[in-house]
Amino acid sequence: MRLNGVFAPIPTPFDDHDRVDLVRFRKAIARWMAGPLTGLVVLGSNGEAVLIDDDEADRLIVAAREAIPTSRPFIVGTGRESTQATVRATKRAADHGADAVLVRTPGFFKGQMTTDVFVRHYTTVADASPVPVLLYNFTALTGVNLPVAAVSRLATHPNIVGVKESGGDIATMSELVSSTPDQFNVLAGSAPTFYAALCVGAVGGVLALSAVLAEPCMRLLELANAGRHDEALALQRQLMPMARLLGSAYGVPGLKAALSLVGFDMGVPRPPLTPLPEAGVTALREALGKFEVIPA
Amino acid sequence: MRLNGVFAPIPTPFDDHDRVDLVRFRKAIARWMAGPLTGLVVLGSNGEAVLIDDDEADRLIVAAREAIPTSRPFIVGTGRESTQATVRATKRAADHGADAVLVRTPGFFKGQMTTDVFVRHYTTVADASPVPVLLYNFTALTGVNLPVAAVSRLATHPNIVGVKESGGDIATMSELVSSTPDQFNVLAGSAPTFYAALCVGAVGGVLALSAVLAEPCMRLLELANAGRHDEALALQRQLMPMARLLGSAYGVPGLKAALSLVGFDMGVPRPPLTPLPEAGVTALREALGKFEVIPA
Amino acid sequence: MRLNGVFAPIPTPFDDHDRVDLVRFRKAIARWMAGPLTGLVVLGSNGEAVLIDDDEADRLIVAAREAIPTSRPFIVGTGRESTQATVRATKRAADHGADAVLVRTPGFFKGQMTTDVFVRHYTTVADASPVPVLLYNFTALTGVNLPVAAVSRLATHPNIVGVKESGGDIATMSELVSSTPDQFNVLAGSAPTFYAALCVGAVGGVLALSAVLAEPCMRLLELANAGRHDEALALQRQLMPMARLLGSAYGVPGLKAALSLVGFDMGVPRPPLTPLPEAGVTALREALGKFEVIPA
Amino acid sequence: MRLNGVFAPIPTPFDDHDRVDLVRFRKAIARWMAGPLTGLVVLGSNGEAVLIDDDEADRLIVAAREAIPTSRPFIVGTGRESTQATVRATKRAADHGADAVLVRTPGFFKGQMTTDVFVRHYTTVADASPVPVLLYNFTALTGVNLPVAAVSRLATHPNIVGVKESGGDIATMSELVSSTPDQFNVLAGSAPTFYAALCVGAVGGVLALSAVLAEPCMRLLELANAGRHDEALALQRQLMPMARLLGSAYGVPGLKAALSLVGFDMGVPRPPLTPLPEAGVTALREALGKFEVIPA
Repeated sequence: MRLNGVFAPIPTPFDDHDRVDLVRFRKAIARWMAGPLTGLVVLGSNGEAVLIDDDEADRLIVAAREAIPTSRPFIVGTGRESTQATVRATKRAADHGADAVLVRTPGFFKGQMTTDVFVRHYTTVADASPVPVLLYNFTALTGVNLPVAAVSRLATHPNIVGVKESGGDIATMSELVSSTPDQFNVLAGSAPTFYAALCVGAVGGVLALSAVLAEPCMRLLELANAGRHDEALALQRQLMPMARLLGSAYGVPGLKAALSLVGFDMGVPRPPLTPLPEAGVTALREALGKFEVIPA
Repeated sequence: MRLNGVFAPIPTPFDDHDRVDLVRFRKAIARWMAGPLTGLVVLGSNGEAVLIDDDEADRLIVAAREAIPTSRPFIVGTGRESTQATVRATKRAADHGADAVLVRTPGFFKGQMTTDVFVRHYTTVADASPVPVLLYNFTALTGVNLPVAAVSRLATHPNIVGVKESGGDIATMSELVSSTPDQFNVLAGSAPTFYAALCVGAVGGVLALSAVLAEPCMRLLELANAGRHDEALALQRQLMPMARLLGSAYGVPGLKAALSLVGFDMGVPRPPLTPLPEAGVTALREALGKFEVIPA
Repeated sequence: MRLNGVFAPIPTPFDDHDRVDLVRFRKAIARWMAGPLTGLVVLGSNGEAVLIDDDEADRLIVAAREAIPTSRPFIVGTGRESTQATVRATKRAADHGADAVLVRTPGFFKGQMTTDVFVRHYTTVADASPVPVLLYNFTALTGVNLPVAAVSRLATHPNIVGVKESGGDIATMSELVSSTPDQFNVLAGSAPTFYAALCVGAVGGVLALSAVLAEPCMRLLELANAGRHDEALALQRQLMPMARLLGSAYGVPGLKAALSLVGFDMGVPRPPLTPLPEAGVTALREALGKFEVIPA
Repeated sequence: MRLNGVFAPIPTPFDDHDRVDLVRFRKAIARWMAGPLTGLVVLGSNGEAVLIDDDEADRLIVAAREAIPTSRPFIVGTGRESTQATVRATKRAADHGADAVLVRTPGFFKGQMTTDVFVRHYTTVADASPVPVLLYNFTALTGVNLPVAAVSRLATHPNIVGVKESGGDIATMSELVSSTPDQFNVLAGSAPTFYAALCVGAVGGVLALSAVLAEPCMRLLELANAGRHDEALALQRQLMPMARLLGSAYGVPGLKAALSLVGFDMGVPRPPLTPLPEAGVTALREALGKFEVIPA
């Protein structure tokens, strides 16, 4: 399974009664599918997966599967804190049509999350999963780190096909590439360092930024692949303000607000999350001003 | 509701097939209830709550309620990442007989967890809860901090009766006491600083250490309350090695191993957690050697 | 050498031409010596020692020695990054009349500062020092930690008589006391946790707060020593706002501004440090309002 | 002043009596000058500058100036904690022949080191300096960060010609480049991310690694400049183990040990630093084995 490309980790719309809103969800997916994105990730961190219960997750997956053509990879986030819950969520996602699953590290019991524990957890999940598994390290949110040594060991599992590394450390990204087989997909999760990650061998990215600015993100990848480094670097710099704003400070509320500014309707975040304050919306509007984005 | 005293946050036993083991659970509670502990906390962090699904939680609460006499406070952990899931878990716990709920802060979306967000979250939960609510700050595991300013505002809510602060910072503990009403229960969660917390006004503690060494923990509280500071300090020092070992490094596996050493049978942790390595068990055995603990 | 008591780590006055101002320095010392403080520390962190050259240091030590009666301990900060420079500074301080030296850990080469390295460094210094040596751990500023294990080993050296621990971690403070001989002086450096430190066995403190509020700091120590814990705790709480403000956020500029508010004239900080902004002065004035401090 | 190139921050040799050893120093410089390095940095962090007094510094600068041809930039580290001491050291370095100075941020009073403070400090130094000034940010050792906003403001000063950023964060490196004028020299200080830094616009590096492996470091720069990205990336990966080992864990002792392995004689580190333990030397020898380095 080759995952060269740019994948948008899409948010989940809620209505004013704090319920999952499948109508808005389908409509948004249709719009993304009219653009150039390689594929979509549903129920990732930006999908507020930790705020969503299992029944809601099932309905979202079914709806997404219907809206995403089979020609584009449809990836579902299924990480849970316990191994058995992760296995259950993974099987359900596969049953409902996921092409692959993206499995965030467990992270609550930080002191116990050793390399051996990660290897055992992911091996159990990958053994049980009907579809290919992507590892997923997001230290800024989970508080734990999936070490390169663990990824290197897990990369030999026939059902583990890649890793999404959300940290911006390029030395680590480089080591992930060099310590895994050539066909193993190393995907960047940090938009501010996307170009640098491509320089050191990442094959693509799972970028919230690409949900808002799909075209420039795809173009950056193409420029880097074509060896047009000066143009790629210039584009990365142009993207930097938006890349920064959609990082941890603004989070999901920022992503939903930015999507609203370019014509998507993703509703409000689920409490305890709250909509982005007006000052944030203004900053996003200004940063977006540099791009030609035609609201649908 | 006065919570002066020492509460044990008890672990959840699993059998060899990774299932909740209610038989072991009831037996262990009966043994704790034969001792001097003020009360118990079920489904807290040490209860592996994040690894347990809602149906399992219901059965554990029902079983605990049957085994705990009404004369002793029975507290249930009900914190979830979303506000609505926390409300649901809280109502179910109350329906099943909890005397109070202990509600850990949400913490996944770290950048968005502001004082206002915490106040809104806990206010919604407390408004909806049929039983009194305890706030619960555990920065080392959640990666977010519930600020004193948030606790101070929430302490005026008629259904919020206290806070468990798991950090060892004594200046913060002191400020929690001085910025909340007199009847508000400030409980310490860090055993290495339990005596110091009592010195600055905490009324008691929720201490994993007390699940293993109930008598010395209760005695420390009594000595401090009686103004016998030299004896309290000496006892705190005697407890220090065990207090350190049951902290974040050994975690739940350490607590289960220590309980096993004093005659409890709590089974194994749930994967991805694994049993404590033998070197850890040896360290615990040595630290326990200083105490007269007669296995039941 | 017994150091039970409260020591003020006094700032160094500079004139408007960025020169050490010995006239202001002598005058300020005279005023402190009219009060109840146990003794003074010159050229500590709050004395801007890292901004002062060796000649200036010599003159400050000579001036302080003349102004401080021999009945009160006069301690000089002599820590440097290299062992040989620390030895030289220590000998000079002793030659010029210091009763003891306070030796901050070296900390620039963080990765290399192991327990063994600290033990070797302090042993060389203590072997060469004509006067007793106090260890000094200030992790927030140096970025390195002097481990309890290092202090415990060094406490057996006949010329090492104590430690100033500037961190507020009470479990560490307690372990410092219990892992060193009875006559070893454990001194607290963190005002917000001064009372808690006394509870667990510290014999006194080196507190910037005491340069401003000498009487309440001395009284807190006396109350704790007399077992009047309720009064001590109440006083600690009263001191808390000022204790917080004089911590790392306001630093030396804050200490100089606070001293100015109570009638001392300490001039301005040395560049790159700048005087405290007006908002900070206002906050200090308000926090000081609760105390009766009569400007000289 | 263009500083495109690779500069080695060379260590300072000490003899067995803890004295600066000018004979070894001159001999080592001669050897480096027989190789391809663009230039040298003397009295940087790796030169143990914080352990060296002013007289020693003067003699080292004079000796280096004699040994370095005027065709290669000779840069001297002159950062001190106080502004006035930094100005004095800078003037002395210029008097003794430095082509430029590299001025590490002050960092002791962490809470006070704001953007404004940095701007004022560096402006004063640059106004007074007879030679061009390079800013120098090394957060891992100083504990403070020189923000991009400060660099951007300082880059307009006619006597400030560049910055050495020792952190490995590539997004920051990219922002340094894009927020400063084209002729401003952004130099990388982190060997594990050297190639990625070049990708985002750094013009060169000040790399301890290049003291040991001058040829491969120079070649990496040339490959990147020539747009031969695949070869550059392959070389970066080959260098990674050595780049990692010469980072913060092994520090100056590691650099001296590695130089010894390739035929330099740099003596021992100055106490409190100690020679690298044998296990470290073995690791270095193994990592070096992949390179053809012919001892002189």
